[in-house]
Amino acid sequence: MASGQPVVQRSLTMDEIWDLYRRDLEEIESHIRHNLNSDAPLINEISAHILDGGGKRIRPLLLSLCARLTGYVPKDDLVLGSLIEFIHTATLLHDDVLDEAALRRGRPTARRIWGNRASILAGDYLYSRAMHHIAAFKNHDVNDAMALACRRLAEGEILQLCANRQPLLSESEYLRIVEYKTGALLAAACKVGGLMGGVSPLQAEELYQFGLNLGIAFQLADDWLDYTADEKNLGKTLGQDLMQGMVTLPLIHVLPCLPADDRRTLVGNIERNAVEEGDLLQLTAHMHQHGSLRYTGARSREYIDAALSNLTAFEDSTAKRALIVVADYMVNRDC
Amino acid sequence: MASGQPVVQRSLTMDEIWDLYRRDLEEIESHIRHNLNSDAPLINEISAHILDGGGKRIRPLLLSLCARLTGYVPKDDLVLGSLIEFIHTATLLHDDVLDEAALRRGRPTARRIWGNRASILAGDYLYSRAMHHIAAFKNHDVNDAMALACRRLAEGEILQLCANRQPLLSESEYLRIVEYKTGALLAAACKVGGLMGGVSPLQAEELYQFGLNLGIAFQLADDWLDYTADEKNLGKTLGQDLMQGMVTLPLIHVLPCLPADDRRTLVGNIERNAVEEGDLLQLTAHMHQHGSLRYTGARSREYIDAALSNLTAFEDSTAKRALIVVADYMVNRDC
Repeated sequence: MASGQPVVQRSLTMDEIWDLYRRDLEEIESHIRHNLNSDAPLINEISAHILDGGGKRIRPLLLSLCARLTGYVPKDDLVLGSLIEFIHTATLLHDDVLDEAALRRGRPTARRIWGNRASILAGDYLYSRAMHHIAAFKNHDVNDAMALACRRLAEGEILQLCANRQPLLSESEYLRIVEYKTGALLAAACKVGGLMGGVSPLQAEELYQFGLNLGIAFQLADDWLDYTADEKNLGKTLGQDLMQGMVTLPLIHVLPCLPADDRRTLVGNIERNAVEEGDLLQLTAHMHQHGSLRYTGARSREYIDAALSNLTAFEDSTAKRALIVVADYMVNRDC
Repeated sequence: MASGQPVVQRSLTMDEIWDLYRRDLEEIESHIRHNLNSDAPLINEISAHILDGGGKRIRPLLLSLCARLTGYVPKDDLVLGSLIEFIHTATLLHDDVLDEAALRRGRPTARRIWGNRASILAGDYLYSRAMHHIAAFKNHDVNDAMALACRRLAEGEILQLCANRQPLLSESEYLRIVEYKTGALLAAACKVGGLMGGVSPLQAEELYQFGLNLGIAFQLADDWLDYTADEKNLGKTLGQDLMQGMVTLPLIHVLPCLPADDRRTLVGNIERNAVEEGDLLQLTAHMHQHGSLRYTGARSREYIDAALSNLTAFEDSTAKRALIVVADYMVNRDC
């Protein structure tokens, strides 16, 4: 990726990073197309629909940047990046079935076009297709990292299902869900990238933690956003997470601060799936009053700081500078 | 498995095989319990429900028998057997969601008790849990065989979905679905068993083909059974496959033999999901008249014969004799 580029000595902008790695990202796209070679045309059609849906390929980008931290020219990182995108896409296909979603990034979901059955199976295929191709690299550490990520993804999803409409979820229980559901695959992407670049076992572990911390920071920023009015998006609906029964950090923080009667009513309404507009308005007012959004933002920042400190294991390089910018971008944008 | 047992010189019965390998099958059960160690209690509960559902562990049994063909004492075959059962169970969980099934082996399906979402996720977990554990054996051939099987399973399922209510499916298209959906995992079980017992690459390929042929024979026997009155089970409903839109070999065989008008009507009814009792009675009469059931039975037997010829690559042994009996058992019983 961007091999032969001079080391950039100043801070980069995200736009510069997209430019700098455009050719590599295009190659990742080409691997994605090429590897969608199922014997079942329907799988290729569904997969292409969701893979064309405007995802930013942040996981392949992270994988490739981590592969370039050592200064070696890595091998196979772009192919592995395309495969990690398959796994991410598989989770989106299953997520949309689980959430009965009609739209993803403004387009009809696969389940709306081809039905739940085809979406479940296309997800199963993308996942197993990726694992089969990954096995062909014959790298035990890569196999282990990817298989662990897939296991954590499934565990995280089911823990989240169990936590649905459970407002008394603790912060640590919640963070475990986030770690599994959002952190694990990013952690694997970063670690696998490092392995491709020939990092030491200690550095591989730092990259795993970097991805994990980044994933948690990303999710907490998302939680914060869900309860925050955005002047640029006046039409945005607040509290969508809660309306879907999802208990997130701002809610977990504010609940113990509420007057007992209000808390009892809110908890009951969440459990009965009876939260109304009025509850939400009152709740966000409480969140502002008790600093729950500030707290969530600060926790997100803590995880970003932890992620950045994981990178101290590496010398300065364009890739490292780019990783720092991508980390910042991820907590400020929808990836 | 049954190590230290004297070589049995005569034919075995299936009951004798269950007895002979009872201790090993119990150890497989114990690995299944032990490996169901998810952080999410719901996963353990759902998985235990379906794993306790009376499956005969035919895949772990085949794996272990193949591991014993060489006379070496294999390592890890019982653990791998338990993991292949996880993968099989994952497919059952997803199948029941796809088929909207209410019962499996006379008990409520997991989706009836815990819902579709939990069933999908428990399937995802069992599958990824197995792949993660398999990666820990650090055997590239085993990784490849298992990952390929999972990929074929997903492809087979989606090909079957696309073939639903498509009566003009060809025999070769149908056999590919059967090969992927039923053959691939049995093939992997047999090959992985062989790898654990230290077979040669050529023998591993024979065991793969043995499992594949066995799986196809098993499925064709099942297709035959679906259209065959069974005097022992007078209450049995004929033609359940067709009522669910599944096109199988007896139907594929009989269609070109029907008078043009009858064929047109039947094809239309299948496509419109409007097959009625009368159609079925007429159809099975045609199947008898045109030898479609005899043809299906003969095809099943051909695949069993091919499977048995794959075993000629191995010396006589108790394990080999047991495999022959298990192969016969599989086309005569519901596994």
